[in-house]
Amino acid sequence: MTAKTVLIPRLTIIGVGLIGGSLALALKEAGVVGEVIGCGRGKPNLEKALELGIIDSYKRDPQEAVSGADVVFLATPVKTLATVTQRFLPGLKPGAIITDGGSVKGAVVRAIEPLLPDGIHFVPGHPIAGTENSGAEAAFSTLYHGKRCILTPTENTASNALALVRQMWSAVGSDVVQMSLEKHDKVLAAISHLPHMVAYALVNAVGSYDHYEENILEYSAGGFRDFTRIASSDPTMWRDIAETNRDALLEMMEQFDVFFAELKADIVAGNSDKLFDFFQRSKQLRDAIL
Amino acid sequence: MTAKTVLIPRLTIIGVGLIGGSLALALKEAGVVGEVIGCGRGKPNLEKALELGIIDSYKRDPQEAVSGADVVFLATPVKTLATVTQRFLPGLKPGAIITDGGSVKGAVVRAIEPLLPDGIHFVPGHPIAGTENSGAEAAFSTLYHGKRCILTPTENTASNALALVRQMWSAVGSDVVQMSLEKHDKVLAAISHLPHMVAYALVNAVGSYDHYEENILEYSAGGFRDFTRIASSDPTMWRDIAETNRDALLEMMEQFDVFFAELKADIVAGNSDKLFDFFQRSKQLRDAIL
Repeated sequence: MTAKTVLIPRLTIIGVGLIGGSLALALKEAGVVGEVIGCGRGKPNLEKALELGIIDSYKRDPQEAVSGADVVFLATPVKTLATVTQRFLPGLKPGAIITDGGSVKGAVVRAIEPLLPDGIHFVPGHPIAGTENSGAEAAFSTLYHGKRCILTPTENTASNALALVRQMWSAVGSDVVQMSLEKHDKVLAAISHLPHMVAYALVNAVGSYDHYEENILEYSAGGFRDFTRIASSDPTMWRDIAETNRDALLEMMEQFDVFFAELKADIVAGNSDKLFDFFQRSKQLRDAIL
Repeated sequence: MTAKTVLIPRLTIIGVGLIGGSLALALKEAGVVGEVIGCGRGKPNLEKALELGIIDSYKRDPQEAVSGADVVFLATPVKTLATVTQRFLPGLKPGAIITDGGSVKGAVVRAIEPLLPDGIHFVPGHPIAGTENSGAEAAFSTLYHGKRCILTPTENTASNALALVRQMWSAVGSDVVQMSLEKHDKVLAAISHLPHMVAYALVNAVGSYDHYEENILEYSAGGFRDFTRIASSDPTMWRDIAETNRDALLEMMEQFDVFFAELKADIVAGNSDKLFDFFQRSKQLRDAIL
């Protein structure tokens, strides 16, 4: 073991749940963080985080919580990020870096960047990791290990702030990549937001049919349960994502409609060869990412 | 241990893969079967089944394979069941019972029942179990344990034949339920066939977008992989299902379209409350079947 350099002497986590809490634990384990201060709405959750050693202390007041912080990590729901930032902003020291873990980047950057005074830096980020659980108790230090973390710097992002946030995510084992806000929001619409919309619609379709047709769902085997697991995700989070990544999501939903309609037409027409090709192509695409 | 009664002195399995092989193994383990004869297209697979003790012998000729059989279990793809039955039918002894494991019941029954002479019984069945693997090597004796097996007797099904097939599935640990052909095909369209169509369309939609947008799929986290696992299923099997359960499947696909369109409309309109309700309702439905 070589002695690690402390990258972040003082870190404030706003929203000490799975995402924020796991980052704090991982940075502590890597030995690259000094003091960690927590902030968030729920006192019982903050007490739990303290007890679990995720944070060293907490402050209920946002301005007090960020006082003296070198880095502030925002891990509250996407639509709250700008409001939260407005609240703590006056408490920041010059040169402080704000970064976030929000699932949508365009809307977040458009809401936060205009708020920032000179000398306060913002590095938009999105670690592609998570579980179905939430709250401080769900946090664990290896959540980000081997996972992608996408940073989406803008023309306003200072290069030294970007470099520090890159180092932070690398230190917890993430594979850090950079792309534009626009590309991030399209990529996520495709690989995450669309699948969630499809799963939510599927469960509603089958569930409403179920109501009429004597508990169809009780016959469902593991396949249906596994396939629809993501429809158990937090409704508030997904309402926020659907609203804030509206355009990219609608584009992907249209894309899905095209293929679903093609499949339906082939079934109606009884076109064996085209059906086989459709399923085969899909299997090949899927198997390529196994 | 009490001595078990042999339910089936001689059983022939047509198609000794995951489904057929697992049934044979489970019946042997339960001590309720005498001799098991295998039949199927691939000699290497039959040799493997012999080596693994799944079958006691095999015959390449279908009529020889069913000679003297009390029960013949059909576990070949849905669209082949009637053709296979036609081939072995002349070899059956009077009183023999044919049963199957096909994923679609209406089309199978309409194709097989008219072929049967007096004194040969058919009990249509569908064990709701499986894995992604196939072939004799994939078979294991506990596949059906705790799983539903749906039997769909018709007005032509003899009650003693039905009773024996029920006992057979109970002996391997299945929870046997009976319903009409029509209900079976609707239930399966909802909980299995629709989800597969949705997954296939989703992977095609994202994959085609990926092609244009620089390997989007490489950013996909576990969620996308898990959600789309069922799109890796065998294209031939799913072509057969889409063709043979056409009407019930199309009805469910229309049902899905209604909900997907509602979701899209709420996103376009930015209707926060309706979006939240939609996701919330879906989460509640999903969590109820956890």
